[in-house]
Amino acid sequence: MDMQSNPGDAAGTQAVQETPEALVARLAKDGRAAQRVLARLSPDRKAQALRAAAAALRSAHGDILAANAQDIAAGQAKGLSAALLDRLRLDEVRLQGIADALEQVAALPDPVGEVISAAERPNGLRLSRVRIPIGLIGIIYESRPNVTADAAALCLRSGNAVLLRGGSEALHSNHAIHAALVAGLESEGIPAAAIQLVPTQDRAVVGAMLTAAGLIDMIVPRGGKSLVARVQADARVPVLAHLDGICHTYIHAAADPEMARNLALNAKMRRTGICGAMETLLLDTQFPASEAVVAALLDAGCELRGDARAQALDPRIGTASDEDWDTEYLDAVLSVAVVDGIEPALEHIAAHSSHHTDAIVTADGEAAERFLDEVDSAIVMVNASSQFADGGEFGLGAEIGIATGRLHARGPVALEGLTTYKWQVRGSGQARP
Amino acid sequence: MDMQSNPGDAAGTQAVQETPEALVARLAKDGRAAQRVLARLSPDRKAQALRAAAAALRSAHGDILAANAQDIAAGQAKGLSAALLDRLRLDEVRLQGIADALEQVAALPDPVGEVISAAERPNGLRLSRVRIPIGLIGIIYESRPNVTADAAALCLRSGNAVLLRGGSEALHSNHAIHAALVAGLESEGIPAAAIQLVPTQDRAVVGAMLTAAGLIDMIVPRGGKSLVARVQADARVPVLAHLDGICHTYIHAAADPEMARNLALNAKMRRTGICGAMETLLLDTQFPASEAVVAALLDAGCELRGDARAQALDPRIGTASDEDWDTEYLDAVLSVAVVDGIEPALEHIAAHSSHHTDAIVTADGEAAERFLDEVDSAIVMVNASSQFADGGEFGLGAEIGIATGRLHARGPVALEGLTTYKWQVRGSGQARP
Repeated sequence: MDMQSNPGDAAGTQAVQETPEALVARLAKDGRAAQRVLARLSPDRKAQALRAAAAALRSAHGDILAANAQDIAAGQAKGLSAALLDRLRLDEVRLQGIADALEQVAALPDPVGEVISAAERPNGLRLSRVRIPIGLIGIIYESRPNVTADAAALCLRSGNAVLLRGGSEALHSNHAIHAALVAGLESEGIPAAAIQLVPTQDRAVVGAMLTAAGLIDMIVPRGGKSLVARVQADARVPVLAHLDGICHTYIHAAADPEMARNLALNAKMRRTGICGAMETLLLDTQFPASEAVVAALLDAGCELRGDARAQALDPRIGTASDEDWDTEYLDAVLSVAVVDGIEPALEHIAAHSSHHTDAIVTADGEAAERFLDEVDSAIVMVNASSQFADGGEFGLGAEIGIATGRLHARGPVALEGLTTYKWQVRGSGQARP
Repeated sequence: MDMQSNPGDAAGTQAVQETPEALVARLAKDGRAAQRVLARLSPDRKAQALRAAAAALRSAHGDILAANAQDIAAGQAKGLSAALLDRLRLDEVRLQGIADALEQVAALPDPVGEVISAAERPNGLRLSRVRIPIGLIGIIYESRPNVTADAAALCLRSGNAVLLRGGSEALHSNHAIHAALVAGLESEGIPAAAIQLVPTQDRAVVGAMLTAAGLIDMIVPRGGKSLVARVQADARVPVLAHLDGICHTYIHAAADPEMARNLALNAKMRRTGICGAMETLLLDTQFPASEAVVAALLDAGCELRGDARAQALDPRIGTASDEDWDTEYLDAVLSVAVVDGIEPALEHIAAHSSHHTDAIVTADGEAAERFLDEVDSAIVMVNASSQFADGGEFGLGAEIGIATGRLHARGPVALEGLTTYKWQVRGSGQARP
């Protein structure tokens, strides 16, 4: 834990450690004060600040890469996996990508101030609901240092202050990126506390953030399942997140065989480690080309685990256990079940989906619409790869995360999901009868 | 606690008490199954069911009034206050009002199915965000039996199942009203579990509801501050609520004196016990008619507690303690402060408002817009009485409650706040590159 000197200490007494709760309260107070400034900035000022931050990031590339090299060295000494080291690693190209992303967010339309609805009442009161920032957003993330810039940019564009708590593996990288972002803000006269990085790796600070109701308005966890599970279990602050992406693709009887094969391959194998990757394939007994679909997946190097009827399609298919239907592999592994029509397909999805993204492949418009209506997931697709589940692909410009909760925002969440609204009422002296 | 027979019990063993958690899980399972039926009903079917429920309520008036008489007798025996007994009491007129309200909710536009946004991506994917019900809503309320019908109606109209947990004082009334509602549903072929009343007054069931994450999607507490505080403190399920209504009215220098007097009187004295009632009056030093405003309030029977400068306006004004600025009196008591312009008024409101409803009275358009922009409350008003803070007055047709949280829905919440959305994606075979 960082030592914090207590301003009230007389010389000669030892500096008192600030408790995690006091640290979070102090950071939140500063962040909320900065947010009140942000809330009143014009769209242009916020965009300009983001462009200045991008420029600062570009000119600090030497410092940032040096800091990142420290993290990489420490990670290698700690024996981090190659995959983790890759997530952690920055180079000139990745750093350009981070700066480009800041500029892209700067170019997105500002959601703040949008009039969501307006009405005039018979008594002459004029009502409007106006979009405003949420306030102070806490981001709790792991080893990817780009989150420091990406999340901060989306929060700033939407007028929110942000309190970032990154993983210890990326400590130096995060501090170097944060310093560049703040330099950009300050060059535009925006308070540095608009983007704060928790200055200690004490894990108790995460707990203090999660329980800081009234100080932090929303928490977004970015990272693996254990991080998200811990945040969801302990948070007293609203959380925007998804725990699992157990995504289904159902190949309906009336699916085009070639499309079915392509979409199954893409939904599973394009990238197996993302939350929108298919984890369970449902094949209709009436679909005539199931063998070709499973063969294509197997030939592409995917391990298949099936129920008895699926196993009958190809001798290379292993046996699915009960657990498989509730497993997010995030790997080249897929569970496969054969279903007797749309009704059992819907039932399987209702029982096992994590309500992230589920898809049907069919040329039958009625089946498609039924699937769209009845599947209760954040994203429901017809004739498309579940790997499209992404804020960028949805045209949102970026995403702070994908949410599978039912309130506030669902699916890919970007700027609009980082706003709320207030009611503005304009009268001319109306008293209530 | 109600005894529940365990179907697995052999004859001769004693019936096993169902735990509160098991009871809530069972009710939630039934409610969620009924909700899947509700989610697919046409607007007309839901409206017809509400009209049938209203008719059933009207024809059961004898039973309901008899049940209510039992509650009133029990309440009198328990020594309930006159105010509480009045909240509890039903008569023919109030019962007609409850049935009328069901019919009014039936006539409201159905929010389900509304396309919130739609777009086509360059790759041909067609995206739409479609409004859907939230799922199962828990309502925890106190002694007003009308909540049983009002809350159930709003949930049903928006396609949600509801789990009602009323106060013990209204036990018989709630059961009688619930029975009529269910009779109405069943006459339209809708599962009775769409509207469930918790069958026991065991207080542990409230705790089980509050922690039933994944089973209950949202909790709405309806009642006094101690109920709301308990729900907010203990809930692991999202809560839609407001704890306090510490509402301010700021009389700006440029306020019309007559309008200021009328609005101050109305905001405080029309009904002192509602959450939108003014609790603090801020008088600008430059406003020339402050004496007349405070005199009108004092003459109307309101107790005033002021800071030193407010006390100088009238000898009848008492001394405000520090606590007064953070007190919701819900009575004919008002705190009064004199402020040196809009800046200190905004500061006072930022420091003491409960972010429910705050108002400015002014003829200065610039001051009005600044107040509307900078006051961070669910409802911000210009030249209107804060007592208008009400779903009916806002044209929402009814309200399930007023929320001061920052996520999902703020201010008066009615049908739209009882919905969420999903993304529907229509493709023609797109795989992600």
